Amino acid sequence: MELTLTTKQERVSNITIYPSLLQDFNCLKDALSSLDKSKPIAIITDSNVEKLYGRSLQENLLSLNFKTHIFHFPAGETSKTRATKESIENQMLENGLTADLYIFALGGGVVTDIAGYIAATFCRGVPLIAIPTSLTGMIDASIGGKNGISVPQGKNLIGTIYQPKMILIDLSLLNTLSKKELRNGAIEMVKHGLVADRAHFDYLETHADQILALTPSTLKKAVYDSCQIKVKIVESDEIGVGQRHLLNFGHTIGHALEKLTHYTMSHGEAVAIGILVESYLACLLNYLKPSCFERIKAIFNKYQLPLSLPYKIPIDEMLNAMALDKKTLNGERRFVILQDIGHASSFEGKFCTPVDLSLIKNALSWMNSDITFGYLR
Amino acid sequence: MELTLTTKQERVSNITIYPSLLQDFNCLKDALSSLDKSKPIAIITDSNVEKLYGRSLQENLLSLNFKTHIFHFPAGETSKTRATKESIENQMLENGLTADLYIFALGGGVVTDIAGYIAATFCRGVPLIAIPTSLTGMIDASIGGKNGISVPQGKNLIGTIYQPKMILIDLSLLNTLSKKELRNGAIEMVKHGLVADRAHFDYLETHADQILALTPSTLKKAVYDSCQIKVKIVESDEIGVGQRHLLNFGHTIGHALEKLTHYTMSHGEAVAIGILVESYLACLLNYLKPSCFERIKAIFNKYQLPLSLPYKIPIDEMLNAMALDKKTLNGERRFVILQDIGHASSFEGKFCTPVDLSLIKNALSWMNSDITFGYLR
Repeated sequence: MELTLTTKQERVSNITIYPSLLQDFNCLKDALSSLDKSKPIAIITDSNVEKLYGRSLQENLLSLNFKTHIFHFPAGETSKTRATKESIENQMLENGLTADLYIFALGGGVVTDIAGYIAATFCRGVPLIAIPTSLTGMIDASIGGKNGISVPQGKNLIGTIYQPKMILIDLSLLNTLSKKELRNGAIEMVKHGLVADRAHFDYLETHADQILALTPSTLKKAVYDSCQIKVKIVESDEIGVGQRHLLNFGHTIGHALEKLTHYTMSHGEAVAIGILVESYLACLLNYLKPSCFERIKAIFNKYQLPLSLPYKIPIDEMLNAMALDKKTLNGERRFVILQDIGHASSFEGKFCTPVDLSLIKNALSWMNSDITFGYLR
Repeated sequence: MELTLTTKQERVSNITIYPSLLQDFNCLKDALSSLDKSKPIAIITDSNVEKLYGRSLQENLLSLNFKTHIFHFPAGETSKTRATKESIENQMLENGLTADLYIFALGGGVVTDIAGYIAATFCRGVPLIAIPTSLTGMIDASIGGKNGISVPQGKNLIGTIYQPKMILIDLSLLNTLSKKELRNGAIEMVKHGLVADRAHFDYLETHADQILALTPSTLKKAVYDSCQIKVKIVESDEIGVGQRHLLNFGHTIGHALEKLTHYTMSHGEAVAIGILVESYLACLLNYLKPSCFERIKAIFNKYQLPLSLPYKIPIDEMLNAMALDKKTLNGERRFVILQDIGHASSFEGKFCTPVDLSLIKNALSWMNSDITFGYLR
């Protein structure tokens, strides 16, 4: 005897880009006008952002008559743990919060990852509003619902895909962002251009100075276009079995580097090196032309990326770390293969493919051979 | 500037009821014919079920050329913790398992809750196949995707809603189930009848002896009908904001009892007392006729339920424990209110409602006044 249970639920994330939001009381009031004021708000943030924007946001929300709690954890990638999730959940429960609340994820990629995972699992899911404070968060981490924590065995291995109801992007927050963090964001924008949109890459290539100088009109266009690329990819493949693998370009190597350097390398720097090494791999496979590879190196130069490995990383350790990559299939490490600027290859409908081990080793040797990536100087 | 991200993903659970499955190699082969044999299987189970069915299932899967791992945790409600989830995840990762695998949840409600939560979050979600071994698991816990763990603050407060790909119901497994566990399952079937389907209640009322004796045709009909009720409710309200609250009938009180007795009361017994107390509450509210209340008491008698509280439970402790119920809204405890056999009230489209505190206290006093529920003897 058989029965079938079918559910089809539409999930909508509204993404709005504001020149200024958190410091503009009326704009904030307007942005949150659809929320139910009888429900409390839990702001989840990190220790840095709490001081910078968290407390003033809490005050503004209180002025708007929202019951508002704020919870924070130590800033940094090493906070992406089960323990952080547990601690925030316990604090929320001990404050009497249950299913009827809003979670505001206020911070960079680490915050949106942890707060998103908490929102997805607190009382089996509560509404999430993301307010990314880093460029990476705005154009990548906050969009598409991927969240999670890292475990000793690897990065982002535990988590869910859970769409925020709203993503509120306040471009003025980038004014207080460090240059390093700004560059880390630029790397993910470059990645979007590389795998999916040549025009975006071209724009980033010709407007590097204005973007680094935070020229409003340029920044707004770059952020909007980068968000749009991400939106399109997520809409075509929410759960990451097809096109969404494209966004993992540079991350097979990048995540392994982060893990093996115990997160002393920033995510952006690790991904940047990952993009270079995976582009090199695409050259070795005769997919990518050397001239394209040169353009990639050149754009990283324009964004003044001080790329270096802290030390040589043994190839076998890299291979082991990559074995637990989420794209790994039947023990085979799979890579996104760039074919041209703006275009990655598809392999029978898949956007990543296993690569001959000797070529991977070759690319990793190249990575180690110039651990300061001196050509970028 | 605005962007909208819209995703709509269809989730389908195929539920099949077999007279016998795990002991019938050809039937099992057939049931799993749609699975990809290049992907390994991780069976998650508890210490009891591992011995009873786990090892033989693993052997059968190996014979069918599936790479199969088995992971288990100590049987019992107290295993529904973050620590159990972490331990199983670590074992899976240490065995080199990544996103491309199937998780088989083999066990009762506790197993399907934990294994479901693991499947929902392992590498952000992997395919789940539920093989419930208890009657509660077959007709309730395995269907509808609710999963999770309990925390010191309350039951099932952390988890997700994640639909299994397949639910394989093997009725022959009920032959080894204890009478107590069988009765616990009958309680949830009765609940389905009470809140949504009078005919199901009538059938359970007139066929109690055959169901307790595991008469195949009766059992099959009761299980199928009960599954179908659950399927309909979940299809109308997957995330539990409307009709799905109906399934929580008896659970506002029941979960609080479980928590306050430190899970020494079984889920079924706690829910049974919960059903009685919440039905009593519906009488106090003049929604439920006393004659219906008598029928509810009588059916529990027919299923030979030895209902008793281990000791008087202070009313303020009950009220505190219920305050963290997931239905609680703005601090108000909400209840499903039975109106008739087969029908619960709706309140402006909601299927639960706040109740005057004095009436809740009155119902809790009644619960404590006859802590052995002697009329059931």
